[in-house]
Amino acid sequence: MSDGAVNVDETIKRLQAQKDVVGVLIMDSKGRVIRSTLDEAMTTQTATLMHQLCDKSMSVVKEMDPTNDLTFLRLRTKKHEIMVAPDRDFLMAVMTQLNPSK
Amino acid sequence: MSDGAVNVDETIKRLQAQKDVVGVLIMDSKGRVIRSTLDEAMTTQTATLMHQLCDKSMSVVKEMDPTNDLTFLRLRTKKHEIMVAPDRDFLMAVMTQLNPSK
Repeated sequence: MSDGAVNVDETIKRLQAQKDVVGVLIMDSKGRVIRSTLDEAMTTQTATLMHQLCDKSMSVVKEMDPTNDLTFLRLRTKKHEIMVAPDRDFLMAVMTQLNPSK
Repeated sequence: MSDGAVNVDETIKRLQAQKDVVGVLIMDSKGRVIRSTLDEAMTTQTATLMHQLCDKSMSVVKEMDPTNDLTFLRLRTKKHEIMVAPDRDFLMAVMTQLNPSK
């Protein structure tokens, strides 16, 4: 495995070990999954939806100011927080649980 | 002016007074502008785009878990941060500048 791939996996392991992290997902800019800690069904759904949402967010930012760029997206819901870091070639999404069962 | 309206305006004034806040926008759930501190063109564009993005975010959250709800959305761009607080009847968006001219 290349150094790059090792770094990615180490990063994912470190993220996954954080308290309340329920999933880590890495996609390419076309929404194809590269790594995921979620089960298959959740991976497919989350990848599709996060890719769509990121595309929409990026186009909103560009429409407001063509010289601007989306650098981070954070969705807070009643149960989770989903953080999405878009890059030119990749997109990483991390989902944390908000009220872990006490 | 009703108490409610007074409170809204006071809240907007307080927000607008915060360092780096460049705009505050309140819409109804249909995206109709109720209050805005932005100029007309920016108000129309921002309201339309934030309403679309919030709709998309809400549907993404619901598709992942019908019992869940979007409570907050934060877009970070190279130049701004846009925070959107959706409620059942209203939606508030606050835009802050990230690197105010020193």
